[in-house]
Amino acid sequence: MATTTAIKMYDLAGADPNRRFSPYCWRIRMALAHKHLRVDTIPWRYCDKPAIAHSGQDKVPVIEDGVRVVADSWAIANYLEDTYPAEPSLFGGAAARAIARFVNSWADTVQNAGISTFVALDVVRHLDPRDQDYFRQSRAKRFGMALEQFCANREARVAGLRQTLEPLRMTLKSQPFLGGAAPLYPDYIVFGGFQWARTISDFALLEADDPIAAWRERMLDLFDGLARKNPGY
Amino acid sequence: MATTTAIKMYDLAGADPNRRFSPYCWRIRMALAHKHLRVDTIPWRYCDKPAIAHSGQDKVPVIEDGVRVVADSWAIANYLEDTYPAEPSLFGGAAARAIARFVNSWADTVQNAGISTFVALDVVRHLDPRDQDYFRQSRAKRFGMALEQFCANREARVAGLRQTLEPLRMTLKSQPFLGGAAPLYPDYIVFGGFQWARTISDFALLEADDPIAAWRERMLDLFDGLARKNPGY
Repeated sequence: MATTTAIKMYDLAGADPNRRFSPYCWRIRMALAHKHLRVDTIPWRYCDKPAIAHSGQDKVPVIEDGVRVVADSWAIANYLEDTYPAEPSLFGGAAARAIARFVNSWADTVQNAGISTFVALDVVRHLDPRDQDYFRQSRAKRFGMALEQFCANREARVAGLRQTLEPLRMTLKSQPFLGGAAPLYPDYIVFGGFQWARTISDFALLEADDPIAAWRERMLDLFDGLARKNPGY
Repeated sequence: MATTTAIKMYDLAGADPNRRFSPYCWRIRMALAHKHLRVDTIPWRYCDKPAIAHSGQDKVPVIEDGVRVVADSWAIANYLEDTYPAEPSLFGGAAARAIARFVNSWADTVQNAGISTFVALDVVRHLDPRDQDYFRQSRAKRFGMALEQFCANREARVAGLRQTLEPLRMTLKSQPFLGGAAPLYPDYIVFGGFQWARTISDFALLEADDPIAAWRERMLDLFDGLARKNPGY
């Protein structure tokens, strides 16, 4: 272990405190495991915004590493890489870190934006009751429509979603992980989106014989099945 | 210079032999310059398939480095990186090379597929007369419609194209190049698509204030304006 004191991480949870479903928190859970860093996760709900006010913003993940408080998954990954250089690298060098930015941007704007139109409604039934009105209202405002409408017609739309994943599919036909022979932070970036979906929705985003599905299984196996142990479908 | 004998490269050209317009050839022209490798380019037209039959396939780029013949832009970039390790790295390490695969897959399936629906018809008027029937017929077969129809309604569709470029735009808001502070092969991958368009079409794919447009200008400035000197709009 790189530190004797565990890092604290505020981690989005549902009514079941073990159901951790944020794609951005999963990036960091996997990154912490990759770096052999101990973590104490704190189940966090949307109504707990005061608990992370000291981070200067209102979204998780937030980590506390001793007196240092860091928010935003990309900033946290960079903090971990720079603060614990003796542990296995998350990026594999400066050039890889720069190029990983592109993967991060793609995952945020294409992958996760696309997946949200399939699973956002399924979030509601897993939320803590205190979060349900907030979630419905904030998302209706963000998406410009009710969640039922936003997530309608999934079967008719899923081929389109799968098509947007083609760059990922092509890459994984050539190599076992985005990082090459072994996973790196880009794998955790993209895995977060699928783990989010898996945790809250029984809708099949991928066909069984999709190379992305095989990679997702490899990701679920990492770190003694860390992600597989999370409640999910 | 890394070699005393120049590498030969078969490079797609129009009726004007100086008009080099293949996005995949431009990846390699830029990569060769990055590696300080001398190149003698051979203008190649679609009707010249017999000239590259010794490569075992019928598409450019093809390079000849002494007795070694390599086809396919990704394979050529990897060949150059592995054969000339003392020259500036195209990737910046094994992890960066693996992650660059994702950029390559995105450029092939999203960026260039999208751009083709805007510029494929403009190719025709720049082609060598011997290539025009072949190009029209092979593309009509590939796209399932005539080029006029494939490239119709550009003004109405261009906002959609720009939206698909959002992962690139987000990345370039954070750093000057995909490679970070300086360009690497991922920049050449993506630049190839824009250089293809610039060479054969006066249609404005980007808004003037798009961060991607500013990056494109930086790319055109590289290597004493190598790409800017190519005929274009």
